Amino acid sequence: MESLIMLLAAHPQRSPNTGLIEACAAACYSCGSTCAACADACLGEAHVAELVCCIRTCLDCSDVCLATARVVSRLTQPSPMLVEAQLMACAEACRICASECDAHAGMHAHCRVCGAACRACEQACRELLHGKSMS
Amino acid sequence: MESLIMLLAAHPQRSPNTGLIEACAAACYSCGSTCAACADACLGEAHVAELVCCIRTCLDCSDVCLATARVVSRLTQPSPMLVEAQLMACAEACRICASECDAHAGMHAHCRVCGAACRACEQACRELLHGKSMS
Amino acid sequence: MESLIMLLAAHPQRSPNTGLIEACAAACYSCGSTCAACADACLGEAHVAELVCCIRTCLDCSDVCLATARVVSRLTQPSPMLVEAQLMACAEACRICASECDAHAGMHAHCRVCGAACRACEQACRELLHGKSMS
Amino acid sequence: MESLIMLLAAHPQRSPNTGLIEACAAACYSCGSTCAACADACLGEAHVAELVCCIRTCLDCSDVCLATARVVSRLTQPSPMLVEAQLMACAEACRICASECDAHAGMHAHCRVCGAACRACEQACRELLHGKSMS
Repeated sequence: MESLIMLLAAHPQRSPNTGLIEACAAACYSCGSTCAACADACLGEAHVAELVCCIRTCLDCSDVCLATARVVSRLTQPSPMLVEAQLMACAEACRICASECDAHAGMHAHCRVCGAACRACEQACRELLHGKSMS
Repeated sequence: MESLIMLLAAHPQRSPNTGLIEACAAACYSCGSTCAACADACLGEAHVAELVCCIRTCLDCSDVCLATARVVSRLTQPSPMLVEAQLMACAEACRICASECDAHAGMHAHCRVCGAACRACEQACRELLHGKSMS
Repeated sequence: MESLIMLLAAHPQRSPNTGLIEACAAACYSCGSTCAACADACLGEAHVAELVCCIRTCLDCSDVCLATARVVSRLTQPSPMLVEAQLMACAEACRICASECDAHAGMHAHCRVCGAACRACEQACRELLHGKSMS
Repeated sequence: MESLIMLLAAHPQRSPNTGLIEACAAACYSCGSTCAACADACLGEAHVAELVCCIRTCLDCSDVCLATARVVSRLTQPSPMLVEAQLMACAEACRICASECDAHAGMHAHCRVCGAACRACEQACRELLHGKSMS
């Protein structure tokens, strides 16, 4: 996400709290990409029938994270209530997906990686929601 | 969305309240496609500078609606809290986009069409949230 | 897709051949939504392990169709070569997904519905590529 | 994209040439996120009317890149012809968007960053298409 961070640094509507926005957008793209790949990794496991709930939750979380990533990374005339509602939905999707992936983390390394990405994204969403500095 | 409705009718996990889900999924896809096209129509207007906020809001609403459409139309092992959080975000995105588009409805027919799609989608999201029958 | 068609009718950059574009955009959204739901329906079947290839192909086709739908439905300053390349990719995704779904059409009604949506979308993409009237 | 790379390293269907796939998937997510933000940055410029073509091209390229990213990063039972067709479309979208962004690179730093991301993504798509090592 180096390229995205460089782009936001050159954005004409950049504001003082863009640091939290950048961290959140990067976490959302990272989690959205990781969840899509974890759904596929689960689909490639021999015991796929035991991973149906994990696949479904990862697909949802991927869709929600990528939509949130785009919304959050738009700095021109944002609607604070729209951004807030989507951040809350994304934090919830990540919390649920992390919990589901953690249940298989001992068995599947990809679920361990995905659970960590979800928790990092949930935290980045909550920090942007509450305007807390991450430094 | 005829094809989607036919597909959901043949879904192995179809449940009694799938009617509300179908209506909501169809409204989300319809609104998501309409908002993407309205952003582009605004971009094609001679006075594009006056429509910057409308373009941005339509792009957000399109992304949120299409993600919500996918989440809602998955019937296999849904996470009620994830679905609920995303429906609330979508209803909010639609409410805000309808309000923005309505402000230009007298000037631009595409904003009038888009505002109507947003209001219909907001209502479908709220009806699914509250489990009310649409009949 | 009534709302999308109405919006494109009010688009400031509407051109004479917008009829083929409208048909293609509607088919892409329809197929994209149907494939996402077919992947989920396959995931909800008792014998999910036999449907892994179908799920994966449907997920790909859904992503490709929804991206194509947005590209095609933008009428403002399109890049003909970009549109053409994406239409070719979409027609190919639909051809492959139709073939995969058809293989299970006797067993699963949702695969029959999805295969039909894929074939209709492939045809709409090819008709727009070749500028043929659909009437 | 560290998290995605770690996930693919733990994928049960990982194959010898996954290195090229990882590089391409990461480049597609990076370019898709950067183009979405560049469209928004252009929208936030005072002279937005002069950037209409750049906004439209960036929106297209973002949609195509994110769809391609998902298709490419799925390692379970891929359809080589579908992957190839989508990679060709993505390389073309990136080529066109790089050319458009480069035209404003002297004026807008975000277009310079976006043009570079597009060229890197075009190259990664072509290297995966031709199976060339990136080392």
